[in-house]
Amino acid sequence: MKIVIIGAGNLSTHLSKALQNSGFEIAQVYSRTKATAKVLSDILQVPYTTSIGNIHRDASLYIISISDDAIKSVSEDLKFIEGLVIHTSGSVSINVFSSLFKNYGVLYPLQTFSKTRTVEFSNIPVFLEANTQENYQTLSTIAKAISNKVYKATTAERMKLHLSAVFCCNFVNHLYQLSKQIVQQAGFDFSELAPLILETAHKAVSSGNPKSIQTGPAIRNDQKVIQMHLDYLSSKPEWQEIYSLISKNIIQESANYLI
Amino acid sequence: MKIVIIGAGNLSTHLSKALQNSGFEIAQVYSRTKATAKVLSDILQVPYTTSIGNIHRDASLYIISISDDAIKSVSEDLKFIEGLVIHTSGSVSINVFSSLFKNYGVLYPLQTFSKTRTVEFSNIPVFLEANTQENYQTLSTIAKAISNKVYKATTAERMKLHLSAVFCCNFVNHLYQLSKQIVQQAGFDFSELAPLILETAHKAVSSGNPKSIQTGPAIRNDQKVIQMHLDYLSSKPEWQEIYSLISKNIIQESANYLI
Repeated sequence: MKIVIIGAGNLSTHLSKALQNSGFEIAQVYSRTKATAKVLSDILQVPYTTSIGNIHRDASLYIISISDDAIKSVSEDLKFIEGLVIHTSGSVSINVFSSLFKNYGVLYPLQTFSKTRTVEFSNIPVFLEANTQENYQTLSTIAKAISNKVYKATTAERMKLHLSAVFCCNFVNHLYQLSKQIVQQAGFDFSELAPLILETAHKAVSSGNPKSIQTGPAIRNDQKVIQMHLDYLSSKPEWQEIYSLISKNIIQESANYLI
Repeated sequence: MKIVIIGAGNLSTHLSKALQNSGFEIAQVYSRTKATAKVLSDILQVPYTTSIGNIHRDASLYIISISDDAIKSVSEDLKFIEGLVIHTSGSVSINVFSSLFKNYGVLYPLQTFSKTRTVEFSNIPVFLEANTQENYQTLSTIAKAISNKVYKATTAERMKLHLSAVFCCNFVNHLYQLSKQIVQQAGFDFSELAPLILETAHKAVSSGNPKSIQTGPAIRNDQKVIQMHLDYLSSKPEWQEIYSLISKNIIQESANYLI
């Protein structure tokens, strides 16, 4: 099975490496940016191109792993390709391909990728969608070669998976950033928060139920401490609003729990 | 050095175990709740009492590790004790002790503790405050026996440390809880988010700069995806508001970064 990788970002890099390690032939890498294309081409030791017109037409699988907004226009330039064409986005419908290809689908890995960090792909949950049962089978065989957790998910389900990831990854990371600025205001380094950050994540995962381990002034409805924190945040009204809103929601969700 | 532990919650348990393991003599455990007192007394193999009147008067160190609101009233019952009396709270001023004791201070470990999870105390940053230089030295010697990261922090600094912990622990855990509910609405289990949650935490810690690794629709200012998520959250206006506010702040803070 000959595979063409379209896009050379973090996800493309990790996915194509995992596929190659599992014995799949990556035939070509495409990126519109030469430097980026070359980096991935060097990693995989396969040819690259920066011209859509030069993309092989005879591959069995095309993995389009580029920014959401670019998927449609790049796909239009690949119109009538016979092989299976997939994207890897959490938020783009499978129907982006419906008027362009005969065989298409989606492979969405629920993970955050950085070029400099290695991840064990076999642990990453991968969510699949395809336009036919046969294409689903093909995609499923490929996905199972690189991950132990392969699931079917519709576009609507995938959007919810992506939304849950926004909360527990993107938003959590932003709260880390705010905590970094506050700990620095106390005269200490962000690294002092490391044991707490890691323990909080591991504890939530191992408990399987973050609600049952919620601690802090909000869950105790400790208005004295909450007010002290809000007063301190008065010079940062946006942070104050985030503090106030999440605290209110913790109190509210805890009440729901009791009902 | 004879130590009395007042309170038998999660922090008391981990702190007293760490002290005992480092060779300190825990002489007695007090808790107003017999069952709780007995559990810690069994762990440490030391006597317990549920009556404040029975607390030894001749110990060198009294560690009051109870809820913030109870510190003052319990301390009043221990008035005129000669030994060093400390609390372990992030939010209570050292001055809570000023009219009651001659020797007093604070030992604040920046970590979240659960009875069922073991933590390596030596990695936990511990922040100290004391009413005299001599008491600070005593406290520092004790703290350095159990932790490799011992710092001086004033009450005002400690309050900021606690606030940063609220963001990166309590609020983060609440976002985990919301993401759990959303992933379940997609028909999947919270455990599918585990690799993402752990990678996000480890990546932030190892980068030392969460801002530099921020991903997701908000940092890309991807209004199409943001709107899709907000529409989906319309049945949960509080979550929608949290989504909207954090997204706005990510966009705003990223702009500050460029300026």
